[in-house]
Amino acid sequence: MSGEGERLAELAKRRGYFFGATEAYGGAAGFYTFGPQGAALKANVEDAWRDRFTVREGNFEIEAPTIMPEPVFEASGHLDGFDDMLVACPDCGESHRADHLLEDNTPIEDAESLPLAEVEDLVADHDIRCPTCGGDLADEAVTQFNLMFETNIGPGSSTPGYLRPETAQGIFVEFPRIKEYARNSLPFGVTQIGRAYRNEISPRKSIVRTREFTQAELEQFVDPERDDPHLDSVADVEVTLYPATEQHDDGGEYVETTVGEAVAAGTIGDPWIGYFVGIAQEWYETLGVDMDRFRFRQHLAGERAHYAADCWDAESEVDGDWIEIAGFAYRGDYDLSKHADHADDDFTIFREFDEPRDVERAVVDPDMSVLGPEYGSEAADVASALEELADRNPAAFDGETVTVSVGGETRTVDTDVAGFRIEERTINGEHITPHVIEPSFGVDRTVYTLLAHAYNEDEVDDETRTYLSLSPTVAPTDVGVFPLVSNVPELVDRAEAIVDDLRRAGFSVTHDDSGSIGRRYRRQDEVGTPFCVTVDRDGLEGDGPDTVTVRERDSGRQVRLPVESLSTELDAVMDGDTSFDGLVAAYDAVTTDAGS
Amino acid sequence: MSGEGERLAELAKRRGYFFGATEAYGGAAGFYTFGPQGAALKANVEDAWRDRFTVREGNFEIEAPTIMPEPVFEASGHLDGFDDMLVACPDCGESHRADHLLEDNTPIEDAESLPLAEVEDLVADHDIRCPTCGGDLADEAVTQFNLMFETNIGPGSSTPGYLRPETAQGIFVEFPRIKEYARNSLPFGVTQIGRAYRNEISPRKSIVRTREFTQAELEQFVDPERDDPHLDSVADVEVTLYPATEQHDDGGEYVETTVGEAVAAGTIGDPWIGYFVGIAQEWYETLGVDMDRFRFRQHLAGERAHYAADCWDAESEVDGDWIEIAGFAYRGDYDLSKHADHADDDFTIFREFDEPRDVERAVVDPDMSVLGPEYGSEAADVASALEELADRNPAAFDGETVTVSVGGETRTVDTDVAGFRIEERTINGEHITPHVIEPSFGVDRTVYTLLAHAYNEDEVDDETRTYLSLSPTVAPTDVGVFPLVSNVPELVDRAEAIVDDLRRAGFSVTHDDSGSIGRRYRRQDEVGTPFCVTVDRDGLEGDGPDTVTVRERDSGRQVRLPVESLSTELDAVMDGDTSFDGLVAAYDAVTTDAGS
Repeated sequence: MSGEGERLAELAKRRGYFFGATEAYGGAAGFYTFGPQGAALKANVEDAWRDRFTVREGNFEIEAPTIMPEPVFEASGHLDGFDDMLVACPDCGESHRADHLLEDNTPIEDAESLPLAEVEDLVADHDIRCPTCGGDLADEAVTQFNLMFETNIGPGSSTPGYLRPETAQGIFVEFPRIKEYARNSLPFGVTQIGRAYRNEISPRKSIVRTREFTQAELEQFVDPERDDPHLDSVADVEVTLYPATEQHDDGGEYVETTVGEAVAAGTIGDPWIGYFVGIAQEWYETLGVDMDRFRFRQHLAGERAHYAADCWDAESEVDGDWIEIAGFAYRGDYDLSKHADHADDDFTIFREFDEPRDVERAVVDPDMSVLGPEYGSEAADVASALEELADRNPAAFDGETVTVSVGGETRTVDTDVAGFRIEERTINGEHITPHVIEPSFGVDRTVYTLLAHAYNEDEVDDETRTYLSLSPTVAPTDVGVFPLVSNVPELVDRAEAIVDDLRRAGFSVTHDDSGSIGRRYRRQDEVGTPFCVTVDRDGLEGDGPDTVTVRERDSGRQVRLPVESLSTELDAVMDGDTSFDGLVAAYDAVTTDAGS
Repeated sequence: MSGEGERLAELAKRRGYFFGATEAYGGAAGFYTFGPQGAALKANVEDAWRDRFTVREGNFEIEAPTIMPEPVFEASGHLDGFDDMLVACPDCGESHRADHLLEDNTPIEDAESLPLAEVEDLVADHDIRCPTCGGDLADEAVTQFNLMFETNIGPGSSTPGYLRPETAQGIFVEFPRIKEYARNSLPFGVTQIGRAYRNEISPRKSIVRTREFTQAELEQFVDPERDDPHLDSVADVEVTLYPATEQHDDGGEYVETTVGEAVAAGTIGDPWIGYFVGIAQEWYETLGVDMDRFRFRQHLAGERAHYAADCWDAESEVDGDWIEIAGFAYRGDYDLSKHADHADDDFTIFREFDEPRDVERAVVDPDMSVLGPEYGSEAADVASALEELADRNPAAFDGETVTVSVGGETRTVDTDVAGFRIEERTINGEHITPHVIEPSFGVDRTVYTLLAHAYNEDEVDDETRTYLSLSPTVAPTDVGVFPLVSNVPELVDRAEAIVDDLRRAGFSVTHDDSGSIGRRYRRQDEVGTPFCVTVDRDGLEGDGPDTVTVRERDSGRQVRLPVESLSTELDAVMDGDTSFDGLVAAYDAVTTDAGS
C-alpha cells in the first residue's frame, strides 16, 4: 500500500470505519472489524443493493446458512478445485502464495496458471526468498492448498462442513424449492447478501482481500431460447468498457459507448450481461463512486471459467491499482447441472411448447404368458430389459428375434412376443435446465472504493482539512448536532432535544459538545457527515421562531433554518428533492464564521 | 412439535418463509434457509431493531468477524466451559444430549446442573434407551462436548479459530478501540447484528434451536456509580413480569405492573435492566407480537451466571411452550475484566473525580552510592525490590533496617539508605472497568414468534381461509398487484406499470396473474401481504381518473382509489398515518365480490 491506501487505513481506524480485528490479542491476519461508521456505511450499501437488485427487480432474496455440508462442495467443484499454491519457509515456517512470490519478484504474469512443478522450478531458478525472514525457498515443495475453512457438524468428524466460499451455492442448492415460489416459471432472479469465507494463504491489501467478507449476489435464471432482459430500460446508459481485445501488453484503449450499442455491436456478448452492466453503472454512480476511476473490464479467455460464455468485471481505481468490485458472468447451465448430477432433486423447469407436439416413441408390451413359463422368476427382468432396449435402440427389433442381457446372461426373445410397436404421443413441453447469469458484488470492496473516492483535502483557515465527500445515500452519520458552547445549559438542552427529535425521525445523529466548534466540524468532515446543525444564542433569542444553522460539509456554507422545519428540510436535501442552494435561496445564508 | 408448530412449519415451507437447508442433499440438522418471504421478514426485523436500539439510542453498531482466534475464547471462558453433555449410542452411533434424555424420560429437571458421573448413573438406573434405535445407553460414557465450531486460520493447524458462539465477544474484544470513538466517556452502548454458531448435539424445535442463527446484541457500558438510564421515558410502560419468587412448582402469579413501579419496588433489580425491558416491551408490540402471549421471566438463582446480578428473559408462547426470545443481563465487569486479564490492551475508562484529590503514597529514593558498592550488579534489583515493598507494605520501613528478597536471597538495608518517605500527590481521577448491561435478542426466534402469533384462520366463502396478520412494519411483501383477468392486455399492461411504479417508490411488490382472483387473494393472505391492488375494467373505463381496488388482508374489505394516489395512500396506511377506515371514508368502499 502506498500513499492513498495508507492515509485511508489511518483515517479508517481513527474515525471508526474499519481496523484489524482482535488487535488486543495480536490480531488475526485477513480479519477486519467494521467500526461504527464502517458498519453503518456497509449497511447503507447493502440496503441500496437490496433496493435496486431485489425489490426493484422483483427478485427473491434468500438467506442460506454459511456452513454447508461436504456434498454441496463436491458438486460445485470447490472441494477439488478451489486451491492456491502454497510454499512454506523451512526457516520461519511462514506460508506464502508461490504464484504471488513469482509475480512480485520476476516479470512472470499469471503464475497461477502454471503447473506446480514448473512453479517449484521457477522459485529455485529465480532464487526467491521468504519475504518474512529471507529463508531459502529453493527445493521447497509447492503444494495445492484448499481455501475453504473446514469444520465438523455435530460431534465427531463424520460430517465435515465448510464455510461457504461464495453465497451463490446457497442459491443453487435451494433451486428446487425456490422455483416453486416462482411458480415454475422463468425468468426469475434470486439474491443473497451475506458472509463468505476464503482461507487466503497471505491476505493483503486491507479490506480488499480478506478471509471473511460480504458478498451480494444475484443469480438470474433464464430460458436461454426464450427470455430476454428489458434491455431498452438501460440501452442509453453510458459505460466505459475495456474489452479483452484491447488488453494488450502496451495498454489498450477504452471503449466509450452505451449499453445498447455495446450489445448490438457484440462487444458485450450477451444481452443479460449488458442489462446488469447498465444497472450496475447507474447504481455505482448513485452510491458516489467516481466514474472517472471506474470501468468494466472483460475477462481474457484464460481468466474465464471453461463454462462461462462471457464475463466482465466492474473495476475501480484505488491507489493506482484497479480492483475488482463486481463480476458479471454468463455461466450457462453449469451450476444447476452439477447439482442435478450430485443431488437427489429436480433442477429443471418445465418449458411448455407453443403448440403441443406429436412425437413417436418405441414401446414394448411383452407377452408374459410366454415369458413367464420360459424365464420364471427372471421374466420381469427380461421384460424391463426389452423396454429399456426399445427406448435406447428401436432398430434392435427389426429382426425376427431380439437379444437382451439379464444378470450377465443373454436372453433371446421372438420379436412378436416382445410386442414391439411405435407409439404416437402428444407432449406439451420439455424439461430444461435454466441458464444462469450471475452479477456478484463485493460489499467490502465497494465500501473501500467509496471511502477512497470520497477522500478529499482542502485548505480551511490556513489549515489542511480532510473530508470524506460521501453521498447522503451511504454516509454513515446523517447529521452532527452541536451546542455552540457547552457551558450554557439552554443551548445544551436545546441541542439534546433536537438530537432526540431527529433520531425519532430516523436520522443517524452524532451529538458532540466537546472542543471548539471548528474542531467539531473537522471531526464530522473526516467522518463524512453531510450536514452539521449548530444551536447558538442568536437562534434562540430573536422574536421569531427558534433557528439553528445548518452547514454543508463540502463547501462549508451555512444557512439558518427554523427548528420546526429542520427535519423536513434535511430529509428533502438528503433525498435530493432539493439542493443546498435551494435551502440557501429559501432561507437566510449565514456568512461564514471562524470555524466554518 | 404439536399442532401449531406443524401447521406453521408446513406454511413456512410452502410459502417461502423457511425450510430445512440443503434438502437436495438430504439436509443438515440444525440448519435452515430463509426463503424469499422469510429473508425479507427477517431483514425487516433487523432494520426495526437497528432503528430502535442503535439509531434512536445513539449507540455504536459494529460488525466484527464471525471467526475469531482461540485466545479470545480462552479469555471469555467458552473454550473451557461452553459444553453440553454428550452420550453416544453404541449400536447406531447417534449422539444425544444426556441431560435432555433424562429430562424427557424422568421427572428430573435441570439435569444440566448435575455432575457427569451422576448423569451416567441416572441414565443406567432409569434404563434410558437411544431415541433413534432403542439401543442400550447404560454404561456408556457421558462426556462434555464443546459447542463451538472449530476451524483453522491459514494453512496448517497452528492457529485454531472458532465460529463465535455469540456476537457479544466481538464487542468486548474491540472495547479498547471503540471507547476512543466514544471519546473515553461513559455511558455508551455498542450493538451488533450477525450470525452466531452453536454446534448443538441434537438441534430441535424448528428454527428455535439451530446450529447457525442470528443475534442482535447490545452491550451497554456504564459507570456503576454514576450512570443512570433515562428511566422516566419508559416508567409508564406496562409489563407482565414473572419474578423468580413466583416460579414455584405449582405455578406462580404474574405481576402486572409498570417498569417504573417494578424498579422502585425492586422486582427488577437494576434500573438499566428496567430501561431495556421497557423499550423491548414497546418494540415487540410495534412488531406485532401478541402481548397476551408474552412475558418477562426472571432467571432463578441457579440459572444465572455467577457474575450476573440480575437477569430477565423475554419469553413468547408458541404451541403451549414458552420460548426465550431475548435476555437482559446485568453482567457487572466480568467480561471486560476477563479480557483485561488475558489481552494486551486497556479495557478501563478514566473516571475523573468531581474534585482533584490529595493522596498519600509511600516512595523510596535509595542511595545508590551505598547500594552500588555493596551489591554490585544486583544493586538495581535491590532498589526495585525496595520500591515494590514501599508500595505494598509501608510499615516494613518503620524499623532501622528493612529486608527484601532478591533472586531468592534476603538483603537487608538501612532504612536511611532506602530514602523512605510519604509523598503527597494530587490526582484527578482513576481508571475503572465499566459494568455491562446486555440486552441480547434472538432474531430467528423473533421471526418464529411473529409468524406463530400472526397465524389465523377464518371462514370466507364457506371455505377455511388461512392468513398471517403480520404488521406492515415487518410484512415481507407490502402489496400484491393483480390484473383482474390475465387475458386482457390493457389490464395486464396497466398492472405491470403499477408494479413498476410501486417498486420505484420502494414497495416490495408481488405481481400475480395466474388463477382466479380469489385464489390470488388466498395466496397473499397466506404470505401475510397487508394489501392487494386489483386492476379491473371498471377502473379504467370511467370518465374520471383511472382507479383500482385496494383490499385489506384481515377484513377483506375493499376501497376504490385513484391510481395517481395509490403510492401516497399506501405509504400513509402502512406508516400508520391513516387507517384503512380512513381510506374507506375518504374514497369509495367497494361491496365485496365473490373472491374477497
